[in-house]
Amino acid sequence: MLLEPARMSAELAARLLAELDQLVLIDPHTHINPHAPASTTLADIMGYHYYTELAHSAGMPKAQIEEPGLDPKTKVGRLVEWLDKLDNTVQVSWLVALCQKFFGFDADRITPQNWEALYDKAAAKMAEPDWEDQCLRSSRIERVFLTNDFDDPLEGFDTNRYIPCLRTDDLVFHLARPEVRQRLAKCTGIEFTNTATLKDAFGKLFAHFTKKGARACAISLPPSFAPKPVGLHEVRGPLQKILAHEAVTADEQARVSEFVFWSLAEYCAEYKLPFDLMIGVNRRVYRDGVYQGQDLFDQRVSLIQYQELFNHFPQVTFPISVLAQASNMELVSYAWIFPNVVMNGHWWYSNIPAHITVDTRARLQAAPRNKQVGYYSDMYKLEFAWPKFQMYRRILACVLAEDFVLDRGWTETQALDFGKQVLRGNVETIFNV
Amino acid sequence: MLLEPARMSAELAARLLAELDQLVLIDPHTHINPHAPASTTLADIMGYHYYTELAHSAGMPKAQIEEPGLDPKTKVGRLVEWLDKLDNTVQVSWLVALCQKFFGFDADRITPQNWEALYDKAAAKMAEPDWEDQCLRSSRIERVFLTNDFDDPLEGFDTNRYIPCLRTDDLVFHLARPEVRQRLAKCTGIEFTNTATLKDAFGKLFAHFTKKGARACAISLPPSFAPKPVGLHEVRGPLQKILAHEAVTADEQARVSEFVFWSLAEYCAEYKLPFDLMIGVNRRVYRDGVYQGQDLFDQRVSLIQYQELFNHFPQVTFPISVLAQASNMELVSYAWIFPNVVMNGHWWYSNIPAHITVDTRARLQAAPRNKQVGYYSDMYKLEFAWPKFQMYRRILACVLAEDFVLDRGWTETQALDFGKQVLRGNVETIFNV
Amino acid sequence: MLLEPARMSAELAARLLAELDQLVLIDPHTHINPHAPASTTLADIMGYHYYTELAHSAGMPKAQIEEPGLDPKTKVGRLVEWLDKLDNTVQVSWLVALCQKFFGFDADRITPQNWEALYDKAAAKMAEPDWEDQCLRSSRIERVFLTNDFDDPLEGFDTNRYIPCLRTDDLVFHLARPEVRQRLAKCTGIEFTNTATLKDAFGKLFAHFTKKGARACAISLPPSFAPKPVGLHEVRGPLQKILAHEAVTADEQARVSEFVFWSLAEYCAEYKLPFDLMIGVNRRVYRDGVYQGQDLFDQRVSLIQYQELFNHFPQVTFPISVLAQASNMELVSYAWIFPNVVMNGHWWYSNIPAHITVDTRARLQAAPRNKQVGYYSDMYKLEFAWPKFQMYRRILACVLAEDFVLDRGWTETQALDFGKQVLRGNVETIFNV
Repeated sequence: MLLEPARMSAELAARLLAELDQLVLIDPHTHINPHAPASTTLADIMGYHYYTELAHSAGMPKAQIEEPGLDPKTKVGRLVEWLDKLDNTVQVSWLVALCQKFFGFDADRITPQNWEALYDKAAAKMAEPDWEDQCLRSSRIERVFLTNDFDDPLEGFDTNRYIPCLRTDDLVFHLARPEVRQRLAKCTGIEFTNTATLKDAFGKLFAHFTKKGARACAISLPPSFAPKPVGLHEVRGPLQKILAHEAVTADEQARVSEFVFWSLAEYCAEYKLPFDLMIGVNRRVYRDGVYQGQDLFDQRVSLIQYQELFNHFPQVTFPISVLAQASNMELVSYAWIFPNVVMNGHWWYSNIPAHITVDTRARLQAAPRNKQVGYYSDMYKLEFAWPKFQMYRRILACVLAEDFVLDRGWTETQALDFGKQVLRGNVETIFNV
Repeated sequence: MLLEPARMSAELAARLLAELDQLVLIDPHTHINPHAPASTTLADIMGYHYYTELAHSAGMPKAQIEEPGLDPKTKVGRLVEWLDKLDNTVQVSWLVALCQKFFGFDADRITPQNWEALYDKAAAKMAEPDWEDQCLRSSRIERVFLTNDFDDPLEGFDTNRYIPCLRTDDLVFHLARPEVRQRLAKCTGIEFTNTATLKDAFGKLFAHFTKKGARACAISLPPSFAPKPVGLHEVRGPLQKILAHEAVTADEQARVSEFVFWSLAEYCAEYKLPFDLMIGVNRRVYRDGVYQGQDLFDQRVSLIQYQELFNHFPQVTFPISVLAQASNMELVSYAWIFPNVVMNGHWWYSNIPAHITVDTRARLQAAPRNKQVGYYSDMYKLEFAWPKFQMYRRILACVLAEDFVLDRGWTETQALDFGKQVLRGNVETIFNV
Repeated sequence: MLLEPARMSAELAARLLAELDQLVLIDPHTHINPHAPASTTLADIMGYHYYTELAHSAGMPKAQIEEPGLDPKTKVGRLVEWLDKLDNTVQVSWLVALCQKFFGFDADRITPQNWEALYDKAAAKMAEPDWEDQCLRSSRIERVFLTNDFDDPLEGFDTNRYIPCLRTDDLVFHLARPEVRQRLAKCTGIEFTNTATLKDAFGKLFAHFTKKGARACAISLPPSFAPKPVGLHEVRGPLQKILAHEAVTADEQARVSEFVFWSLAEYCAEYKLPFDLMIGVNRRVYRDGVYQGQDLFDQRVSLIQYQELFNHFPQVTFPISVLAQASNMELVSYAWIFPNVVMNGHWWYSNIPAHITVDTRARLQAAPRNKQVGYYSDMYKLEFAWPKFQMYRRILACVLAEDFVLDRGWTETQALDFGKQVLRGNVETIFNV
């Protein structure tokens, strides 16, 4: 909605963007390996599932990508052959942008002609001993949330820079796998035999993680999941079957998942940890897809499935990410009503400008400003924070310019304050950083 | 879609808005109490659930808002403390806009520093004996639809200005409550004992309401509701259980609801009343929420659930509001096909610029122009008509400018005629005002 | 998202549009009758269901439209009386645009005053012996996909210009109708008696169609459909009941539909034909609607229902159209992951600028560029290709201008190349034209 000249809007958005660019950020959700946070070759960067899955979708055989023993440079060369079919995607624009920013790449496309020089230049840059620091500094990122397996010792890295986060998918959905139970026993010293000792084991995890500075518990959830409190009598049987290595039905597994999930929420309450819910992913939909390129979703999901949870745990903050854009309006509305529901970033298939723009507009217009975490990078390697946040910042600057300064008559300072709160301030307050 | 310079668009939209501003309106859906239509203090205004629920969502304890015996001024002072967390919301922009328009407020934020002077100034203004008339005149509203309980005597007010509307949620969903049946018996003189006498009682309501000038029957409906004709043999049993004060199952309650709903539709046909359907709300989702701040929704709803109804009652007009924005496309498409389906306003969680813009665009582009009621305020107090309609008018002016004048080559007069029809003309023809 | 002045955007979009206008196109989905591809009177044009259903929705009695023996001119005259209630719709804008382009119509509205002169002028134009050629040339369309009944002999027309396409709704959903089985027997010479001979009959169809140059198999599907492989033992019983003229249950019909559908997919694999899936339509929702104006949809549908199909037939390309706009994000995401899923046009209720703009933006931004068929006209008469493609081209030009040239820094040539690929190039590669 624009009653003001758009030229004014464009100049204004550019000014706001320039200011937002200066802000040093905390990235509240990533998959960084703190022992190898930055890339060493372009293969680390182009091995990001976005590129392998898009190249495969465009026609590249999976075998060419996942050939055993493939050396990094050959892999990059093969992927580059397919980039001309993907250069329209915003995902590839992140790649080009980071190569331009970090590696002095001066073309606008990575091609079979120019990739090799880029590969070598990038490798040289990333071989510099302080590359990790350089990359973070240049990206204006100072702290990074991790996604840690529940049995991660959380040692050997700076937990002030790399903030632990307890990821719990395995516990909730895969406790029937012997290796998951073995990992749990090993890291907690508790071989659970019933619901009580299982909860004791979870308690050990929370004690360990919070001692190491964890700032969130997190999980991704399928569209069908609807958490609820389970009577102990309902979960005892299934749990004993699991311990006896007997097969459980889908229904029994559901009881176990609900019990574990509810127990984790109880510990979040006890340990005052926000519980990040990433709602809506179906795993392994495309069974022959490339690594990490197999998951999709079913848009028929509703936050009404979480009604009992939100009511039962008023003291737990739930930063929520939704996968289907159709869910954004529910997210805004639930955050508008429930004090403990917080909007968290733009996840995965929703993380493109077309969707972010629409979603950001609704969020900024309708829900309290202290309940919005604007963005997280979801990155596996540090180099991606900058281009991804940059994409978001541009959209944020435009929405602030159009919807707040031009349409609502805010001053630029007021708009910037709001932008900074959404980009950084709320990360501090919501995650207690 | 803009192939014309946006500067032209902005000036044009401003011109169209200035014209639309002059139009005197009929507000086709509100919750005004005709015995106390205007506010007396800022507490009436800030007690609107939008502010209490948003403040609570932002962190304000419910007890501070709903403390028994709280005096109006203290309540406002407490709420103001939280406004800095809500000032981004369009809901708060309505509040500031109306204070500026009606009470000479000249700041852009209501703060702990300036609220008290505003409170007093507002109270003085609203104490003027003709405040109701002033407010309506200044807001360019001449008639206002009400939402009346079925047992409202509809007396003691000017039914020409405040148009009665028969609200039927209690009958359809709460007939099992003894007090609802007592109210029905008292106002109709019929203590129903079976389906026939129950329908007779409904008939009395329609006769009473239409005699008093009612222009619509209305109801809000949960996402799960799917009306259908029920065999009398299916409803007799449940009805007898209700009359015997026995508990009914969810299924039995559903039969009763369907029977009552279908009977009401039959009376709408007989009395030629449009039947406003407000589709998609789940009540009491957040059980500890503030008053009127507990309801949410499940986006998984479809107008296909109303297929039988629309086919069965071609002579009844159904002005439809949808709660989930995801439902707007269905609404547009059903209005495009069914002669008796009309699009009605932007309801509740859909009533923010981000959603209205998208929804308005689709409605104006794709469905007959005589089947669109652009907006209603849904207000509880008269002061809200102006800022809410103003929000809508700005969006309407922009869509008319961009999609019709610039993109389709309409003259400004043609665009204005369309805007006026959507804002007022269709209210007259559809509701026979 | 605009960080550049919008004036620049408007001029740029106009330049891109002018270039895209020059491109000669292949229309990859229509309902053209190759024996009478063009119209002869305005009644052919205004008899398009868009106008009859909209006029009926706006209030025109069906009997006035479908009166037996109604002569074309009277019919047009009657419809014109209702156009003032529809002139806002983009559907009517196609009508006016084509009359302006082809018939020298110089007003902006078709009215009771000017329609008759237009009618006569149009009739004269369409009576020119080379009207079909003129229309195609002027519309810059060189080849047109058809929608052929499975028993179409595909003779008597130029299959190079009018490309056959095997439409299979009758086989999948109506095999229980004796006339469908008779048609199948007649055109294949096989009176099927079991699953094997039924498949043989299908094989004949594919052989016939591909021999005649068919480039796709196609079907429209209800929201409830979820294809899966069916065990022969599950389908044998229902099939025998059908052959014995016994009634089948909904469940038995579902098994037959699944079996037929899966068999068709197998033949698509064997004959290397893309399988166009048009997902999400409910037939005969408005039972008393005008001809072809009775269908609607249920937005609660997901591509997850097609998971098994996409996994099972990696060698078959599935160009997919979705009816509900809510499905577009799933379509983009599935095309982003599955190599065999292709995005195909903007179907029916989604085919209005408000939806196309949003959907195009997401598609161009997120999925490989070689997997997007931008548009098809879905027309019944040749005159509609131009205005419908023109609507799409304008949107495409704007999205290319804003999202690619201004926002991503592409050159105009790069943007045009992308536009041309989406408009034409991909039709050639995906359908092997």
